[in-house]
Amino acid sequence: MEKRKCLIIGSGPAGYTAAIYASRSGLNPVLFAGLQIGGQLITTGEVDNFPGYADGVRGIQMMEDLKQQSERFGTEIRNSEVIHIDFNERPFKVTTGSGERLLSETIIIATGASAKWLGLASEAQYYGAGVSACATCDGYFYKDKDVVVVGGGDTAIEEATFLSHLVRKVYLLVRKDTFKASKIMQDRLAHIDNVDVLFNTELSEILGDDHGVNGAKIYNKKRDKEETLVVQGIFIAIGHTPNTKIFEADLSLDNNGYIKTIPGSAKTNIPGVFACGDVQDSEYRQAVTAAGSGCMAAMDAERYLSSRLQKNGIFCVESNINISTVITKNGINCIENYIND
Amino acid sequence: MEKRKCLIIGSGPAGYTAAIYASRSGLNPVLFAGLQIGGQLITTGEVDNFPGYADGVRGIQMMEDLKQQSERFGTEIRNSEVIHIDFNERPFKVTTGSGERLLSETIIIATGASAKWLGLASEAQYYGAGVSACATCDGYFYKDKDVVVVGGGDTAIEEATFLSHLVRKVYLLVRKDTFKASKIMQDRLAHIDNVDVLFNTELSEILGDDHGVNGAKIYNKKRDKEETLVVQGIFIAIGHTPNTKIFEADLSLDNNGYIKTIPGSAKTNIPGVFACGDVQDSEYRQAVTAAGSGCMAAMDAERYLSSRLQKNGIFCVESNINISTVITKNGINCIENYIND
Repeated sequence: MEKRKCLIIGSGPAGYTAAIYASRSGLNPVLFAGLQIGGQLITTGEVDNFPGYADGVRGIQMMEDLKQQSERFGTEIRNSEVIHIDFNERPFKVTTGSGERLLSETIIIATGASAKWLGLASEAQYYGAGVSACATCDGYFYKDKDVVVVGGGDTAIEEATFLSHLVRKVYLLVRKDTFKASKIMQDRLAHIDNVDVLFNTELSEILGDDHGVNGAKIYNKKRDKEETLVVQGIFIAIGHTPNTKIFEADLSLDNNGYIKTIPGSAKTNIPGVFACGDVQDSEYRQAVTAAGSGCMAAMDAERYLSSRLQKNGIFCVESNINISTVITKNGINCIENYIND
Repeated sequence: MEKRKCLIIGSGPAGYTAAIYASRSGLNPVLFAGLQIGGQLITTGEVDNFPGYADGVRGIQMMEDLKQQSERFGTEIRNSEVIHIDFNERPFKVTTGSGERLLSETIIIATGASAKWLGLASEAQYYGAGVSACATCDGYFYKDKDVVVVGGGDTAIEEATFLSHLVRKVYLLVRKDTFKASKIMQDRLAHIDNVDVLFNTELSEILGDDHGVNGAKIYNKKRDKEETLVVQGIFIAIGHTPNTKIFEADLSLDNNGYIKTIPGSAKTNIPGVFACGDVQDSEYRQAVTAAGSGCMAAMDAERYLSSRLQKNGIFCVESNINISTVITKNGINCIENYIND
């Protein structure tokens, strides 16, 4: 069976950056790009905030650059999807959707997260042309314009607050007659003048033309009334789903399904398995934070391999960095990762 | 006195990325570039591992790109150096070497770290042309070549181990007759064939020509013997000094002088003060990890400002994210940052 030192799953900024670093460390990695090659940015229009692209870059171009860069250092990229990993054996046994089977000593998980959408046809039509799921990423494009934010949770209020400092007016559409958000977040809105909260209100259609979004059809259930808002941007803030289905049984996940890592590292609860990018980050979710954590994952993987010594038939993870728990197996001190549950 | 929402100190990848994000959030930041404008990368030759530069980039060019990008979104850059901050008042009072005095509601510290050098003239001469202080950054350029690593601590062994997988031979020069490194790190070397450890040995001169380094003059004190090694690379691994002198009195620092942040965030022990890049990272120290943490610092600063509500004359930091310690002041629940000491 094909054997690897390092196998990377995912092809967003985290996956490719891990690949750049793993390749340059001599780990000769293979990267499985999965079904959405290039990750979330591939469907993003302009990326303006990734450092280095002084004048901005199309998402699709940026991901092509990262792919080429990782290949330049020898990363082997395959387009199939990893569908199963046996974490109980070492090396880990990996199976792909196209029937490949490989063994790998380390696994770097960079499978990302997917924004939740309402499911409107117009939402997909105007994505990247007025429709966004990230105020931090795209808010700046709507300076002094009017926008809609959809959602009733903490994230929706956070997006609305963020946008309130940039745009002229925010309409916050809440489906129910109360917020799902915490009291403390709701209190924020009391101090902001340019956010209108519309309860019992759904986004029924996004209006636009060749230049992008120019309006929002909204429906108030309680009053059974439809009206049209003149807005230039629509932010859908109803949450994200981390892509962790195949890891559920083995990796420690938080309540929302994100992979838990030891803070300040890419280490998961399984030594030799590392996570980076949005699959382990529900807080910042930026391309550059994902890239930074991809670098960390590759460096952690290299250090893991360098520090793993076989003593008396037992693999011990030895490290002077992030010393966690020292356990003793057959008289040998082994340092193992831990995750606070 | 001039008043700001956000003041950034430092002009490396962390500082400029914080500036890009802070500007795009409407915080209208001012960035003090300090004495080494562009940070450590300004003196680095080729940067090959920063994602996005598919074919690599000169350090000086990359930092110019980041500077332009931050200015495009409205960051105001000043070349003076911050010499004092009064953290006891709010807003914080900042003084620069050229006599400016400003007030700022948030401070982002990105002052970096400086590699320690031996002090040889030839070291400065060939820096970036065979002389490096970072194996992760530059090791790949020495594939199948011979190199010297100087140092006797954990970092030196880590650098030597990393390089051993890439280069043909590593000469590890240790000044004393024993390692300062931990036992566990020393044990690693027993499993590696291509690292020669030379105790009681100093690097006395770096040899080279127009193409860069081609040798190392070394001196064995015990045997009073000088010899010449034919090598193409010299890695100085005797440590780094974080640039935290002016923060010593107020911020929580670790034993090596690095600023402590709440892991997985840029928050320091003082609410409203954030740290990013090498000044708070003794472990990864890469341009892309610095950039990622710069983004985090700006997002943390924006959220701090959005969540800070004045109630009964008391500023409370309220946040649903990273809830830390809830303290009660005059009957109001205030959530404050904390750092484990």
